[in-house]
Amino acid sequence: MKALQFTTTGEPLVVTELPVPEPGPGQVLLRMKAAGLCHTDVGVLEDEGWLELLVKTPITIGHENAGEVAAVGDGVTDWKVGDRVAVCPTTAAGAPGFSFDGGFAEMMLVDEQTLLPIPDGVDWVLGAAATDAGMTSYAAVMTRGGVKAGDTVGIIGLGGLGQIGARVAVLEGATVYAAEVNEAAWHLADELGLAGVQKSIADFPDVVFDVIIDFAGFGTTTAQAVDVIRRDGTVVVVGMGKLESTISTRSLILNQCILKGSNGGTKEDIAGVYRLMATGKLTPVTTTIPFEEIPEGLHRLHDGQVTGRLVAVFD
Amino acid sequence: MKALQFTTTGEPLVVTELPVPEPGPGQVLLRMKAAGLCHTDVGVLEDEGWLELLVKTPITIGHENAGEVAAVGDGVTDWKVGDRVAVCPTTAAGAPGFSFDGGFAEMMLVDEQTLLPIPDGVDWVLGAAATDAGMTSYAAVMTRGGVKAGDTVGIIGLGGLGQIGARVAVLEGATVYAAEVNEAAWHLADELGLAGVQKSIADFPDVVFDVIIDFAGFGTTTAQAVDVIRRDGTVVVVGMGKLESTISTRSLILNQCILKGSNGGTKEDIAGVYRLMATGKLTPVTTTIPFEEIPEGLHRLHDGQVTGRLVAVFD
Repeated sequence: MKALQFTTTGEPLVVTELPVPEPGPGQVLLRMKAAGLCHTDVGVLEDEGWLELLVKTPITIGHENAGEVAAVGDGVTDWKVGDRVAVCPTTAAGAPGFSFDGGFAEMMLVDEQTLLPIPDGVDWVLGAAATDAGMTSYAAVMTRGGVKAGDTVGIIGLGGLGQIGARVAVLEGATVYAAEVNEAAWHLADELGLAGVQKSIADFPDVVFDVIIDFAGFGTTTAQAVDVIRRDGTVVVVGMGKLESTISTRSLILNQCILKGSNGGTKEDIAGVYRLMATGKLTPVTTTIPFEEIPEGLHRLHDGQVTGRLVAVFD
Repeated sequence: MKALQFTTTGEPLVVTELPVPEPGPGQVLLRMKAAGLCHTDVGVLEDEGWLELLVKTPITIGHENAGEVAAVGDGVTDWKVGDRVAVCPTTAAGAPGFSFDGGFAEMMLVDEQTLLPIPDGVDWVLGAAATDAGMTSYAAVMTRGGVKAGDTVGIIGLGGLGQIGARVAVLEGATVYAAEVNEAAWHLADELGLAGVQKSIADFPDVVFDVIIDFAGFGTTTAQAVDVIRRDGTVVVVGMGKLESTISTRSLILNQCILKGSNGGTKEDIAGVYRLMATGKLTPVTTTIPFEEIPEGLHRLHDGQVTGRLVAVFD
């Protein structure tokens, strides 16, 4: 089978012919259907800081994966050949492309605990995109932010993750306002169902925010969120646009603000994304490419030339 | 009856002879037994910023109050003459000394909803000190911090509130380490039951903190807490030593830190303090003075010449 392998920092991915792996006890072999491309993949290729996180080299990368069960090992009872499944990248089994070979390959071998079903009505491309971009956004809004119907929610940053996060909050019944410095993205407001969009979260003087999720993380954005949140409200930081944020201790204390970092998510978060995707109302923008074009796709990601999530499809 | 009244900023308190108030429906008249003196009182006397928070002038100040029920108004069934009670300063009825006349007086009239019983085994002085210093410390550690038996807890700052907070955590079954820049206070470690004390919370490289409560709030102290807290751990900021804190967004996100401001507390927090005080094991240091010496006591507070909580006693 063909696999795209990373060898070392600064080198292009290598197309390698590998034997199809045999599932051992508790393992499942997947025929890959869709694999998302992520800025993290670009980072692995370019920045040697990632090397220490790789269990081996060469390694097949790709951590946003959806496929069909092709074979199961001994003792696997939850999955059968033909099941449509996704791979959660954050289980105790480790991360695909880091702890074991990832999904930029025709077949992929995983521990059964990493799998969750892709429901009817969610295609392979969204099925893959839900496992990282979707999970991270959903976890920040729902699991960490605790957004519920009737809440007034602020979303800072309408990039890929922020768009998903804003739409999730709208679909869960919140009234959602967004802050986005780039006015070219303001046209998204109607499509996402937002109540308003401004350059800064401080530009809504009459809005009382229950929860604000900062997908930008530019320091000042977090500080503004802590200043304007209602008493006992929650601010979640998921974006890391800058390494530091200078916040007002006075606002933190007087607002009794709860400021939370959010990092990744869980299988339950991916399932939450699927639930919304299956209604047909959560449809993040994607661009699809064939498997063979993954190396070129990573260059396009690096150059910022991609609209929406970039997902490779197989056959 | 005698009352100590604030007239305006920069003027000394005035000893005034006032008629004993009559309790109306839902009101309770207290014969004052103990009233704590607080840096906030010093602030009210010196800083005109506080003027806008006062419902009237002149006003009797004093917001840390314990007394005996002397009379009850119509409809009051929860309290009877002779009951030993404390006044919670944070109920919907407002704050004594701000929203209504406070406790620097022989008698005090309160809304019945402000009261809670002082249990046997808690004297008047501790009964008063529990309502602000105690409540604020307990709320930060227990209610906001969620400390439970078996937790490893960091306490930053061993001033008056930090000492109470540290002792509360120890009595609730936590293993407690403290950070205190002033080595002269390190001798308190044994008495409080601490596992260790260092200058900075970053000076415990082998300790994994579940919860850290920052009673100093000096910016760097909060930043260090966010850096060293375990993943999914909680940092509570209750001290406002500086107005800003520059924290690492990276630590906040990668540690999935929950950073909370804590401001005041509730009647339930005071009841929690009483429960511990009644065991005889939570005995914060106090200095008592007679009612007549309150004005001088506020000068001593201003000059930093007080050990422990300063409490005025009546008769």
